[in-house]
Amino acid sequence: SIDGQRLWSSLMAMAEIGATPNGGSNRLALTQEDAAGRHLLIEWCEEIGCQVRVDGVGNLFIRRPGKRNDLKPVATGSHLDTQPKGGRFDGVLGVLAGLEVFRSLHDHNVVTERPLELIVWTNEEGSRFAPAMVASGTYAGVFAVEETLARQDANGVTFGQALEETGFKGSLPIGEPQLASFFELHIEQGPVLEEEELAIGVVTGVQGMRWFDLTIHGNAAHAGTTPMSYRQDALAAAARLIDRLYTHAVYDTSGDTKVTFGCLEIDTPSRNVIPANVSLTVDLRHVVDEQLDILEERLRSELADITGTFGVAVNLERTWASPVVKFDEQCVAALERAAKCHGIPYRRMMSGAGHDAVYVSRVAPTAMLFIPCRDGISHNEAEYSTPEHCALGAQTLCDALIENANS
Amino acid sequence: SIDGQRLWSSLMAMAEIGATPNGGSNRLALTQEDAAGRHLLIEWCEEIGCQVRVDGVGNLFIRRPGKRNDLKPVATGSHLDTQPKGGRFDGVLGVLAGLEVFRSLHDHNVVTERPLELIVWTNEEGSRFAPAMVASGTYAGVFAVEETLARQDANGVTFGQALEETGFKGSLPIGEPQLASFFELHIEQGPVLEEEELAIGVVTGVQGMRWFDLTIHGNAAHAGTTPMSYRQDALAAAARLIDRLYTHAVYDTSGDTKVTFGCLEIDTPSRNVIPANVSLTVDLRHVVDEQLDILEERLRSELADITGTFGVAVNLERTWASPVVKFDEQCVAALERAAKCHGIPYRRMMSGAGHDAVYVSRVAPTAMLFIPCRDGISHNEAEYSTPEHCALGAQTLCDALIENANS
Ligand SMILES: NC(=O)NCCC(=O)O
Ligand SMILES: NC(=O)NCCC(=O)O
Repeated sequence: SIDGQRLWSSLMAMAEIGATPNGGSNRLALTQEDAAGRHLLIEWCEEIGCQVRVDGVGNLFIRRPGKRNDLKPVATGSHLDTQPKGGRFDGVLGVLAGLEVFRSLHDHNVVTERPLELIVWTNEEGSRFAPAMVASGTYAGVFAVEETLARQDANGVTFGQALEETGFKGSLPIGEPQLASFFELHIEQGPVLEEEELAIGVVTGVQGMRWFDLTIHGNAAHAGTTPMSYRQDALAAAARLIDRLYTHAVYDTSGDTKVTFGCLEIDTPSRNVIPANVSLTVDLRHVVDEQLDILEERLRSELADITGTFGVAVNLERTWASPVVKFDEQCVAALERAAKCHGIPYRRMMSGAGHDAVYVSRVAPTAMLFIPCRDGISHNEAEYSTPEHCALGAQTLCDALIENANS
Repeated sequence: SIDGQRLWSSLMAMAEIGATPNGGSNRLALTQEDAAGRHLLIEWCEEIGCQVRVDGVGNLFIRRPGKRNDLKPVATGSHLDTQPKGGRFDGVLGVLAGLEVFRSLHDHNVVTERPLELIVWTNEEGSRFAPAMVASGTYAGVFAVEETLARQDANGVTFGQALEETGFKGSLPIGEPQLASFFELHIEQGPVLEEEELAIGVVTGVQGMRWFDLTIHGNAAHAGTTPMSYRQDALAAAARLIDRLYTHAVYDTSGDTKVTFGCLEIDTPSRNVIPANVSLTVDLRHVVDEQLDILEERLRSELADITGTFGVAVNLERTWASPVVKFDEQCVAALERAAKCHGIPYRRMMSGAGHDAVYVSRVAPTAMLFIPCRDGISHNEAEYSTPEHCALGAQTLCDALIENANS
């Protein structure tokens, strides 16, 4: 069985890299902090005899050999990058739980039939380079490599440049190695497990999500002299849109509609100037693809409405669409068996967040498991999961990996 | 009579300093561009024998001696600083029209009884250092000198540091010289004169205005996993507030209520993070002080409302309140006589914008005159007034100055 205390120590050690004032971590994808986190992990893995390979978009593949190395590996992993003010568990737990499984097997001199593979996917968060899960998506063939390398951050630095600068452009061909199966442990990032006092969520799928870049173009004018009826106020138009969509989501009593405007910027802000140009991002989610279509239509019709009302022009670009995902039933069942066998209270559930498992599920049998996090809070420095829940998650993961690697 | 073509040439020459791609000017207060504009003006004034003095907050006092230099001067002027994407006329016209009056008097060897004073007030726009008209307000004793010098721009640079860096911290005591009267020519910055096909507006007063700094504090959380009912979305709360206040202003059929949110910033924006902290600026205006009180109460009650609805905390700071101003009736009448005498079609009107004349009117008899600007647009690179209107404005100003300086 795994060592919960050792797992906790590695989590806390990793959190030191890019530590933020309020107890979180800042390791935006492919920054020096992200690179330092990766180097620490590689050091730990090499200590127990694992071999590290890096593919062309910086994904790390860390192998623990089995008895039958001609067979495809059973894989686990997640990501080490964080939000700009992120927590210490989002992504990191899935990676370090995999390390803890490897360490425990090492301690007990266990060699599985199939090899095991611990994977660190690059730029999962999508905060530096949009969209999220871009490198697992590239591995799975959803995004072309050249397209991924050309993606730019807010300062115009490309993914490719950032890979070179951090030394994580590897030579392993994209799509290799193929996997027998993939299991990802993650914190829930929502309130359900905590509320229902469950220690494990067995994740059966992931809701659909769509990202948009939106610009609204009005006209700059004087705040004091311009009659309200003459204004083309891009910010007032944006505010109407945000309020309408937000209210629409709040009034969906099923709770399945989610609308977030995460970024908003005025091009040349000045207190006494009516904002001329506003750019914002839109994140729409739903557990049913058809409902997501309807939600997107709603966005478009509200946009048409503000165009008329505020005399503004709008430009909406859909930059990402990730359909609803259903995970592999056998992988789901394996996780369920592991939880049951330890008597851990669990439930089946859908994920509200995107995860690398979403794209990996296109090329290998995949499932995920969640542990609770305090107040359901994530993407926040205050993110927290207890050492006990982390250990239970890692133990469940360990059992499912061993079962799959030996069958 | 003044030389309209020469006035136009000086306007175009000044516009070269800090010229922006779309035909405007960027000479934010006390930047190198602002300093370069001032040096050009000083050069022009010294060529015709004027003497330049600078006070402790960078206001320039440029004197053309009269026959009775023991008498208080009759003054004119405005400002040379601009919005970040400002026009070529806002402020500049009032300064260069004064220069043109001096040049014309010089050409014709006219010496007035009283001396004349051309004044350039520092940081009128309020875009770099809030509030607006801060240096004319300091001259008039409304703001303490130390307070003005300590005001900071968005990067934390103080007004005092910027004065030292540009070399415009002068030794003339604040409040000197006292003025016999003050006349300010400005573009209207609104649509009224153009619509009514009038060449001159004789300004009888200025509406009241209040500036606020507002912060809204919610909680960062994951865009995909956080149920709508759990959110404390600071941006959605801001959007509700903006929409409510904007709509309130639009529905005031008198057209006298004006509401502008010029700046809005999310502290750590990320596409898939619910915004935790949003800071914004509020600009409220009305022609009646009691109505402005009611408008401010409305702002406070809408804020109380979003606090409850969105579970956010708010902090509202009123940083500036400029009450409704009534200009001096004799100065107004002098401008009216000058317009009439040239047969220029004019009307009396209130100003929607703040001007240095607002504060000067507290310590000297003051009035203003406006000329039309295209489509009423100002605080925009596209701002435009015709050479003919500029000349008519300068001529009217010239007549009023001479009449006052000789009586
Ligand atoms: N797990 C996670 O936070 N992924 C980022 C992608 C998303 O926004 O869902
Ligand atoms: N004239 C002018 O634009 N002044 C700035 C102060 C204001 O916002 O009214």
